Amino acid sequence: MTSTSAPLRLNPDRLLPPDPGLRAIARGLYESVRDLPILSPHGHVDAQLLLADEPFGDPASLLVAPDHYVTRLLHASGVPLETLGVGRGSLTGAEAREAWRQVCTHWHVFRGTPVRYWLDSELSQIFGITERPSAKNADDLYDRISACLEADDFRPRALFARFGVEVLATTDDPCDDLRAHEQLAADHGFGGRVIPTFRPDRYLDPSAGGWAEAVGALGAVAGTDIGDFAGYVAALEERRRYFIEHGAVSADHGHVDARTDPLEVSDAARIYRAALAGTASDAEAVAFRRHMLLEMARMSCDDGLVMTIHPGALRGHHPTTAARFGPDTGHDIPVRTEYTRALRPLLDRFGEHPNLHLVLFTLDETVWSRELAPLAGFYPSVYVGAPWWFLDAPDAIRRFRDAVTETAGFSRTSGFIDDTRAFCSIPARHDMSRRVDCGYLAQLVAEHRMDLDEAYETATELVVTNPRRVFKL
Amino acid sequence: MTSTSAPLRLNPDRLLPPDPGLRAIARGLYESVRDLPILSPHGHVDAQLLLADEPFGDPASLLVAPDHYVTRLLHASGVPLETLGVGRGSLTGAEAREAWRQVCTHWHVFRGTPVRYWLDSELSQIFGITERPSAKNADDLYDRISACLEADDFRPRALFARFGVEVLATTDDPCDDLRAHEQLAADHGFGGRVIPTFRPDRYLDPSAGGWAEAVGALGAVAGTDIGDFAGYVAALEERRRYFIEHGAVSADHGHVDARTDPLEVSDAARIYRAALAGTASDAEAVAFRRHMLLEMARMSCDDGLVMTIHPGALRGHHPTTAARFGPDTGHDIPVRTEYTRALRPLLDRFGEHPNLHLVLFTLDETVWSRELAPLAGFYPSVYVGAPWWFLDAPDAIRRFRDAVTETAGFSRTSGFIDDTRAFCSIPARHDMSRRVDCGYLAQLVAEHRMDLDEAYETATELVVTNPRRVFKL
Amino acid sequence: MTSTSAPLRLNPDRLLPPDPGLRAIARGLYESVRDLPILSPHGHVDAQLLLADEPFGDPASLLVAPDHYVTRLLHASGVPLETLGVGRGSLTGAEAREAWRQVCTHWHVFRGTPVRYWLDSELSQIFGITERPSAKNADDLYDRISACLEADDFRPRALFARFGVEVLATTDDPCDDLRAHEQLAADHGFGGRVIPTFRPDRYLDPSAGGWAEAVGALGAVAGTDIGDFAGYVAALEERRRYFIEHGAVSADHGHVDARTDPLEVSDAARIYRAALAGTASDAEAVAFRRHMLLEMARMSCDDGLVMTIHPGALRGHHPTTAARFGPDTGHDIPVRTEYTRALRPLLDRFGEHPNLHLVLFTLDETVWSRELAPLAGFYPSVYVGAPWWFLDAPDAIRRFRDAVTETAGFSRTSGFIDDTRAFCSIPARHDMSRRVDCGYLAQLVAEHRMDLDEAYETATELVVTNPRRVFKL
Repeated sequence: MTSTSAPLRLNPDRLLPPDPGLRAIARGLYESVRDLPILSPHGHVDAQLLLADEPFGDPASLLVAPDHYVTRLLHASGVPLETLGVGRGSLTGAEAREAWRQVCTHWHVFRGTPVRYWLDSELSQIFGITERPSAKNADDLYDRISACLEADDFRPRALFARFGVEVLATTDDPCDDLRAHEQLAADHGFGGRVIPTFRPDRYLDPSAGGWAEAVGALGAVAGTDIGDFAGYVAALEERRRYFIEHGAVSADHGHVDARTDPLEVSDAARIYRAALAGTASDAEAVAFRRHMLLEMARMSCDDGLVMTIHPGALRGHHPTTAARFGPDTGHDIPVRTEYTRALRPLLDRFGEHPNLHLVLFTLDETVWSRELAPLAGFYPSVYVGAPWWFLDAPDAIRRFRDAVTETAGFSRTSGFIDDTRAFCSIPARHDMSRRVDCGYLAQLVAEHRMDLDEAYETATELVVTNPRRVFKL
Repeated sequence: MTSTSAPLRLNPDRLLPPDPGLRAIARGLYESVRDLPILSPHGHVDAQLLLADEPFGDPASLLVAPDHYVTRLLHASGVPLETLGVGRGSLTGAEAREAWRQVCTHWHVFRGTPVRYWLDSELSQIFGITERPSAKNADDLYDRISACLEADDFRPRALFARFGVEVLATTDDPCDDLRAHEQLAADHGFGGRVIPTFRPDRYLDPSAGGWAEAVGALGAVAGTDIGDFAGYVAALEERRRYFIEHGAVSADHGHVDARTDPLEVSDAARIYRAALAGTASDAEAVAFRRHMLLEMARMSCDDGLVMTIHPGALRGHHPTTAARFGPDTGHDIPVRTEYTRALRPLLDRFGEHPNLHLVLFTLDETVWSRELAPLAGFYPSVYVGAPWWFLDAPDAIRRFRDAVTETAGFSRTSGFIDDTRAFCSIPARHDMSRRVDCGYLAQLVAEHRMDLDEAYETATELVVTNPRRVFKL
Repeated sequence: MTSTSAPLRLNPDRLLPPDPGLRAIARGLYESVRDLPILSPHGHVDAQLLLADEPFGDPASLLVAPDHYVTRLLHASGVPLETLGVGRGSLTGAEAREAWRQVCTHWHVFRGTPVRYWLDSELSQIFGITERPSAKNADDLYDRISACLEADDFRPRALFARFGVEVLATTDDPCDDLRAHEQLAADHGFGGRVIPTFRPDRYLDPSAGGWAEAVGALGAVAGTDIGDFAGYVAALEERRRYFIEHGAVSADHGHVDARTDPLEVSDAARIYRAALAGTASDAEAVAFRRHMLLEMARMSCDDGLVMTIHPGALRGHHPTTAARFGPDTGHDIPVRTEYTRALRPLLDRFGEHPNLHLVLFTLDETVWSRELAPLAGFYPSVYVGAPWWFLDAPDAIRRFRDAVTETAGFSRTSGFIDDTRAFCSIPARHDMSRRVDCGYLAQLVAEHRMDLDEAYETATELVVTNPRRVFKL
């Protein structure tokens, strides 16, 4: 390192309100929850990673290539996705080094974003880096992180323990055999709880590419004849049972809209047959998918899986990139989303069912005050999901509490969800949430809208009580 | 009371900005308006309550059962509405006590909500309670409030005077004979001004249950033959005249959308006949309702009744609850709402009419900066209604001023509306509004966007000048 | 002046955060950018004004009549537009004085609005006024401003230099011969850079009044046979070339929606012929206009003109006013606007084209976090336009940074756009933006989300680097 590198320092009061009076209150609240365990009921880490417990390969494969939060803004800044290693499997040393260099060279484009905040935290707290990344120190930082990654205490399980993760939910295909989860649970050398999540999107939407084949595979793993609609439903039920047996607590749904209009069973069965034969119309496929979301709620009432819904992403907005680099490569773009009418059929039937926990996430923050808080403030089954994707950042989290609390309070919110494929960012993400929520509570205390003892109690509830209750952990 | 109850204290600076400099400015502004009279131009208190002036029955019937702001969040928390006395008429002592116990036991779910703030204020300022409600002290508080309610100075008229209410508008059915208002006005023992509001929704919407019967009843009270459209219009005009004669200053409209597309008179007449005969299509019923909203604006130009519109609530979202407990039981849920195009026919015709005052409320806060402030910033007839239902809370009121002021200033806003059936919450609601608005003004002063003398003048305008001017009081 | 006039004073810390710690940081940042030159890449000043360099006529013609920001709120307050001189050409002395009197008499209606802030700045900094306008001092202020306007150093070019304008873009009709720009550029007595902007809306939308005649005129100035679609496209290309030759850097597009659905060329050609013949249907006209927006993007890839899009204004909301006073008279009202799906065809084709700079403005702030920041955070061609029309004010600018930064950072935003016809408000508008952005940066520094050196660098980037880069200045 040359002497001219700017320092990278994590201020202990970061993200707390600047006003001295507020900061003092917020600091106390934060200290009371800082070291509580991490509950991560929704995310995208691969269970195999923890099962294998191999050393992470290199800084770019760990921190850059798989994380569309990082790569999208670099792409916008003119760095080709291939240079960042997106969608390429393993990288050569030179490729990984170059990808990392691009991150460091473009460090300024992340100013003010949560990616910058998370990377700062990871570099400082996990890897002990004390200089701000730049073109100049990129290679040096690469070498130092690489050296860390070779050490045993930087292997996945060691980090898992160091991060204080109590529960980590993965997101899994219904056909997955969950072998990794099973072996991890049986492994007495691993103390963590890693649970699968049932994510059936592609099996519910006949317009998804390869749907008929996917349903065929589902029937095969479920041991069910999926030749008719009843068998298809039974296959889904069977796989949910299998997931529950392997520790799953929730099923996750991410279609473009949240509609749950019912079909007559005979119509559903007819469309199902047509879809298998490849003759269902676009409108029929959509109607079927909406009916199946309702059916998933029915199953959740029966088997108790928490139902999470996060509609409103237009996937693969840039077809060229999707074709070349695959899904989840940074160009899923939000669209306006409706919940009040969309969920009415579901809530009419199941909204007061004691087994149903329905957690509603959004990429469209306009629904927080208008739809989600009002729904969660009446229906005992409904919870407002924490700020998520594009909104999991300090200012957005404040807007979330500001928009939701006055109608739904704190008890009707889900607790933080990191939703990440970036394993090393998990503690930074949860820490961010704790800091910002404590800042919000401090504001309520300073405005005499809440007493201090209540704020302390609420801070803990948001971090551990709510996630445990809402996700049945 | 045991010694372990947490205290309930109202800090004199509550809701004012925590920054010491801002707080000092805000405090001065607030002190200048704190004791100004309450003008309540829109609400749901029953005039009969003040006419009869009977003691309130019990704490639950007064504070819980009729107030869907309170019961909805308890319902979400698993308390059945019947336990809270919703839709049940009078409660036995044991039932009322149990409903109150539920409120106290679930006190924490209201943290951060305005309901908590209002109840704190009511318990402290009206009933002299000094302990925070809890399961432990629920019975004791019940007894103490009950004892208050037996005293003469807790009767409705005594509280009305103590609250400093100068004008209280009720919301009334066009067929109402307004006897209570008439007798109150004639009662020299009562000094208050209690005025009716014309609320014709169910008479304008042929798709509403029992529309034809309602229109028949309207014709009967108006002494008008409603067999044809002209007679129906005349009946509405006659009832407006009757309301005005009894002190009404406004007509209130709350359909699901705000559209005002005109029909040819011949089409309106044809649909009217079909609707009476029960043969109008759904589309015709909607078209008729929209035409009639335009017609209401025409009448307002003629007779001078202020027109308030608050679209965007999907009523009775949970049909099971609606069937069992009736309307206004906590499950009206907002939907996205449009005003710019919807009101264009109305504003094209009447937007510059000197008699028209059109106050636009919303449950969809996205329209504040995008539609309502721009409309009120051009049309002399249009005013932005104060934050209302789901948005009548500190953070939302701040967002309102933040979103509206820069385009429409302060003079184009209506002044606060309590919109409540909870009689005892009226002073707390108006006080909340005064505090938050003074905080906003203090911010403008501290940022040198407004001079201090102007802030003092504006604070008073928001509390008394604007409501008097906008609602022609 | 009587001794009772309130003072008009510009506090040096205006618009900076009131918290003392934040203010100190913000003040430093602001001082570092306060005196940087003004880059104004989008606005509505007339180049002829600077070419002629005649003295401004009178205070009302300069500050009131042409500025719908000023006149709309006066109209809402009951002042007829004709009294304000709107749409009337030159005013008599008495008329101008009366228009100015109305502004002063209604000074209070501007409280809390940016118009008030801009006028305060102009009166104080340009004209040396030290009293707050009122009915009482209106005539005196009129006389003093009038006296200034007679002096040489208040002529347009002198003010241009005094304001520190480095680049000023005008907005021009594609048929404009740009003689004024040409002569200004050739005038060695004028050191400024005044560049045209290509604004082809009315030539792209067959439903606009007089479209066929306009297209005919376009063909004439382009020297192109516009009898068929290819000739029409060639005429547009030719005029863009002409504009570029005269210094243009951007083309500006303001249709009611942002859709870019492609037509087959044969369909475009067929609709074009029908539109010329006056037989195109409404739907065909809309389809053609959307196709042509896509075609404009194609041309921008070819010729490098920056493409700015600002959809979502429903023009001429009040037809009576439009008929009497013309366009741009204060009653264009925003409507909800969609970008994600609307721009997908354009971005699918050209989103990664190195020549394309696409700046997306909005009047619907809900799209900032939901659509614009996600788009600009992935596509290298997309930039989020600065807060604009109805949103170019302190609170809105804060909401903009709050909503956009966490997803798109600072580098993907355009820099400030004054978008004004009010020449004298240009420095006040840019200064407002600098102050508010520095306040936002100070907040990030105080919350330890950004280091101070980065904040200084970013402050400068927002003022000069981003506009130069984004607008290719």
